[in-house]
Amino acid sequence: MTVSIALLGAGRIGRVHARAVTSVAGVRLAAIADANAEAAGEIAALYETLVSTIDDIAADDNIDAVIIATPTGTHADLIEKFARAGKAIFCEKPVDLDSARARQCLAVVEETGARLMLGFNRRFDPNFQALKQTIADGKIGNPEMLHIVSRDPAPPPISYLASSGGFFKDMTIHDFDMSRFLLGEEIETVQASGSALIDPEIGKIGDFDSASTILTTVSGRQCTISNSRRATFGYDQRIEVLGSKGAVSAENLRPASIELATAEGFLRPPIYDFFMTRYVDAFAAEIRSFAENLKSGAAMSPSGNDGLKALEIAEAADLSAREKRLVYVSEIRG
Amino acid sequence: MTVSIALLGAGRIGRVHARAVTSVAGVRLAAIADANAEAAGEIAALYETLVSTIDDIAADDNIDAVIIATPTGTHADLIEKFARAGKAIFCEKPVDLDSARARQCLAVVEETGARLMLGFNRRFDPNFQALKQTIADGKIGNPEMLHIVSRDPAPPPISYLASSGGFFKDMTIHDFDMSRFLLGEEIETVQASGSALIDPEIGKIGDFDSASTILTTVSGRQCTISNSRRATFGYDQRIEVLGSKGAVSAENLRPASIELATAEGFLRPPIYDFFMTRYVDAFAAEIRSFAENLKSGAAMSPSGNDGLKALEIAEAADLSAREKRLVYVSEIRG
Amino acid sequence: MTVSIALLGAGRIGRVHARAVTSVAGVRLAAIADANAEAAGEIAALYETLVSTIDDIAADDNIDAVIIATPTGTHADLIEKFARAGKAIFCEKPVDLDSARARQCLAVVEETGARLMLGFNRRFDPNFQALKQTIADGKIGNPEMLHIVSRDPAPPPISYLASSGGFFKDMTIHDFDMSRFLLGEEIETVQASGSALIDPEIGKIGDFDSASTILTTVSGRQCTISNSRRATFGYDQRIEVLGSKGAVSAENLRPASIELATAEGFLRPPIYDFFMTRYVDAFAAEIRSFAENLKSGAAMSPSGNDGLKALEIAEAADLSAREKRLVYVSEIRG
Amino acid sequence: MTVSIALLGAGRIGRVHARAVTSVAGVRLAAIADANAEAAGEIAALYETLVSTIDDIAADDNIDAVIIATPTGTHADLIEKFARAGKAIFCEKPVDLDSARARQCLAVVEETGARLMLGFNRRFDPNFQALKQTIADGKIGNPEMLHIVSRDPAPPPISYLASSGGFFKDMTIHDFDMSRFLLGEEIETVQASGSALIDPEIGKIGDFDSASTILTTVSGRQCTISNSRRATFGYDQRIEVLGSKGAVSAENLRPASIELATAEGFLRPPIYDFFMTRYVDAFAAEIRSFAENLKSGAAMSPSGNDGLKALEIAEAADLSAREKRLVYVSEIRG
Repeated sequence: MTVSIALLGAGRIGRVHARAVTSVAGVRLAAIADANAEAAGEIAALYETLVSTIDDIAADDNIDAVIIATPTGTHADLIEKFARAGKAIFCEKPVDLDSARARQCLAVVEETGARLMLGFNRRFDPNFQALKQTIADGKIGNPEMLHIVSRDPAPPPISYLASSGGFFKDMTIHDFDMSRFLLGEEIETVQASGSALIDPEIGKIGDFDSASTILTTVSGRQCTISNSRRATFGYDQRIEVLGSKGAVSAENLRPASIELATAEGFLRPPIYDFFMTRYVDAFAAEIRSFAENLKSGAAMSPSGNDGLKALEIAEAADLSAREKRLVYVSEIRG
Repeated sequence: MTVSIALLGAGRIGRVHARAVTSVAGVRLAAIADANAEAAGEIAALYETLVSTIDDIAADDNIDAVIIATPTGTHADLIEKFARAGKAIFCEKPVDLDSARARQCLAVVEETGARLMLGFNRRFDPNFQALKQTIADGKIGNPEMLHIVSRDPAPPPISYLASSGGFFKDMTIHDFDMSRFLLGEEIETVQASGSALIDPEIGKIGDFDSASTILTTVSGRQCTISNSRRATFGYDQRIEVLGSKGAVSAENLRPASIELATAEGFLRPPIYDFFMTRYVDAFAAEIRSFAENLKSGAAMSPSGNDGLKALEIAEAADLSAREKRLVYVSEIRG
Repeated sequence: MTVSIALLGAGRIGRVHARAVTSVAGVRLAAIADANAEAAGEIAALYETLVSTIDDIAADDNIDAVIIATPTGTHADLIEKFARAGKAIFCEKPVDLDSARARQCLAVVEETGARLMLGFNRRFDPNFQALKQTIADGKIGNPEMLHIVSRDPAPPPISYLASSGGFFKDMTIHDFDMSRFLLGEEIETVQASGSALIDPEIGKIGDFDSASTILTTVSGRQCTISNSRRATFGYDQRIEVLGSKGAVSAENLRPASIELATAEGFLRPPIYDFFMTRYVDAFAAEIRSFAENLKSGAAMSPSGNDGLKALEIAEAADLSAREKRLVYVSEIRG
Repeated sequence: MTVSIALLGAGRIGRVHARAVTSVAGVRLAAIADANAEAAGEIAALYETLVSTIDDIAADDNIDAVIIATPTGTHADLIEKFARAGKAIFCEKPVDLDSARARQCLAVVEETGARLMLGFNRRFDPNFQALKQTIADGKIGNPEMLHIVSRDPAPPPISYLASSGGFFKDMTIHDFDMSRFLLGEEIETVQASGSALIDPEIGKIGDFDSASTILTTVSGRQCTISNSRRATFGYDQRIEVLGSKGAVSAENLRPASIELATAEGFLRPPIYDFFMTRYVDAFAAEIRSFAENLKSGAAMSPSGNDGLKALEIAEAADLSAREKRLVYVSEIRG
């Protein structure tokens, strides 16, 4: 059996997903839609598929599933439309920048019984998978403390930031999801501190560029997160977990594993400096997982609810940093 | 010119200081006092010095300085006594477990003009010194975010914890001092989360064994601290600093730098598992600094005020964790 | 312009090359031939190409080039046949196990003006490429001493070894090529020591399983090579180069960059344990290089002569180990 | 019981031994002799001992042992003199630059029954001790292949080299001893290649500055050694051992374990650049071992015979490099 998937969005991430989809056996990229016809045409030509429209895709009985890689503001509407059209859905995170709207959208998903997977690609990184497996194998005992470092090489343009939903929803949200993924427990309280240390313009639009966060779970486990919009040495992505029997950590990755020794010292090259090179395996693996679950009927993971939980924590963090107080996630859940 | 130093306290740390003092040229270990005469006698025999008493040492005009390595509860009284006796003073941290009492004691130090150095030994660790120097050399630009990992191999006995002043004053206080030392700026707010994850008995006496802390400076720099009373792999002591131009980190140290490769993987030996082996160089260097400043007349550092500041942050952290709220350090200074 | 390439040999390496060929833009896998029709059919089905025969491929004017991935004993005959047929040729190393036969074959290549590339895949490994570039950039000054570690996870079957040409031609030949590639100078003398330490059966067939080699260039540069048929921790592939201004080294690669810390110590996972996973990028890059040079008309590298030089060194090494004497490579060149 | 040791030689190494001797409990530095009275006087003042003469020391019944740290050319005569005087002897390596003279001297040691320890300090390095222990514990199975890297930061003056005995006796001799120490088996054959790549003046006096050596044991185990007089990044001292069950390696050591990350990459500081800082622990441990064996009556190790064996291998290596042939160590033994 071959499943047919349509791609919505022919931007940077859309291209990554197109390549991933077409490399999975038993999966067909059936159509692609984008407001930018030229971009859609390029991908269609590359992968020998058709340019179509959102409505036609929704109406096409031969299409089993869609990958939503359109701008964030369209996610909730598209999820609802395709849930009602009976398609399985892979959607880039987040469902929406507003947790109330996301909750509404997920209610539609539940009503329709649609199958939805959220694009938290980092869960599929081979190194973080190895972390998760090490914990699952009991090798560190009970996980107690988590530390996540997540830093961009350089800040995006102010124009991007202005509509990004703010630091915690745009950047830390991946780490919030990762904390739930690795600790396997819900977050109860959030304490965050945010500053604009890199660029005063970022402060002027009311956003942060540097933030520290403590998450505490119901049982008292703790997660610290250190984020910055600037790491001159590359895309800094590290995680460590301390448990009752030991600790496990995932290090940064670099394109070449060489070391130069001179009178200055011992120099290893910079690490990957772009999320699409750093997480190239993860992007392919998440689409492979979506396609396999599509074929096997297995439950989709991460789910829409995982997306909502991360969003709630992000809203709590934003509130904590702005109001300078500890915030219970339950305050957000309303 | 030879300076004469007397040692108060013949316990574990007293022995370390005795060895350090006797290895500095131009310094003489003139006397040792301890309620435990046998312990005092052993050190006296080993280093060919005399057993004496606190009062005799205070009255002895030939003694220039004292090293206070007695139980914490006696520090403030002894500092005051020897300040009034005109001696220079090296005192193990803290001045007192109560910041109000410490403030009172330091007022006496100021009145008498006594020279006082506090024993924050980690400032003298060669690796952390190298961190500090790297920052001072401008190699990472403006330091923005600090992360400190500080974990004991295993919890001390409950009896010790009961009179320790609590997790933040007993354990994290070193990290609070380190944050001020490396960032070169005062801490404005403290957010902390504490749990008893390792041993429920620790929770029963109202203490924590695992804690995460965010410190934010006046200018918005942030420091995250991850502490635990248990790290099965050794005494986990790491620091990293992110700056505008780069980052610098200090790694753990191990007794042997070997690696064993087998079908299981690549295994390096555990790190040092005891503060006295891990910080052996630091303990010697701080006493050397005290002795050299004593001879040269240079200002003592870390000062009594450094001790007070760290104590205030510790009290703020304790309050933050207990009352589940952000605490301004100025509340403590009150 | 699209170039058409035919694949000879549908074994393990043939499959790797088929995948590589079909992922290069502007290149078409036009046909596949193998004595084993089933194996050929599988690859043909997977990549939507045709099963053909050696003779038909040689006669087909629409085919521009061939990839020879057949058993070693057939290489020289096939190179001659396709050189005469006017095809460009990529051939797995070696040209032949006998340097005299290889020399004869390369004479045909020269006469016919055929373009020939030898499959020394390791030259295309991104890490070794980075080594080469670091040297070319002058960062270590004049390269003086080279050390190559090259070890298999476990010995192949005795049946394979019996027709492998012996340890130095089968295994070390890659390192001999690498020494010329990195030092950029011809080897003058060879000193080798070989033993059968792992399996006495290997000794019984007159082969070695463990060998150490010193190569000395005309100008006195030296290369040490440490080979073994057994490394329990994986496929051990490391290189370091010492130069007048510094040194550069390439480390082993592992599937996951995690570290587990327990009371036993700090454990990183084993490295890659198979040449096809370890050198997956290199295999793809060499075929890409062949295809690009095919299209652009650039000179093929490594050349047939590179293959011959490595073979001569291998024969010299074998002689050195067996006769327990230093051997001049010129003795082999006859 | 306190043992009394006299020190012969007040140079750089003499000072190191003086400090080591005076830090061992139950050992007394009884006297010091040196042709340079001023140098002897300085050490005597520092450690509160007496300046004496070689003859007086030999005649002094209260002196149990001597440490010979005089120029190499005097070693054999002094060993004989003090052996006949009934003293235990610690002598810096080598016994003599000529193996025949060394053999003669050791015959006197045997006749007199004198206790002699040779100063191969590297055997006492904590990291190499850990290597040895790992092998002894069976963790790598049967050791099969050894690789030793031993490089100086920069060449010594030509004047020193002219009387050093040549590259292999001056520099590689430590590695020859290490190979016997770690493999636990005698060396049968030596293959060496030597060049003057760093400084043509070194070539003009007939010496080498860069050398590669293969040692093969009776049972076929192999050791490769890579030596150079120049490593811009420090004093390069590494060892790795491959065995049937795994491998173990000892890495270089550095004064500070920090890492600086910038846009250039990840930089760790240079390693130790001087044998007296790199091997500070080893120098202390070897003298401690001498003193302890002196008191306990245990056998001295490394012995005079260990010194002779290393010297024979060095002479074989020199012959191999000069005559461009494999040399059996038995040729040297005559």
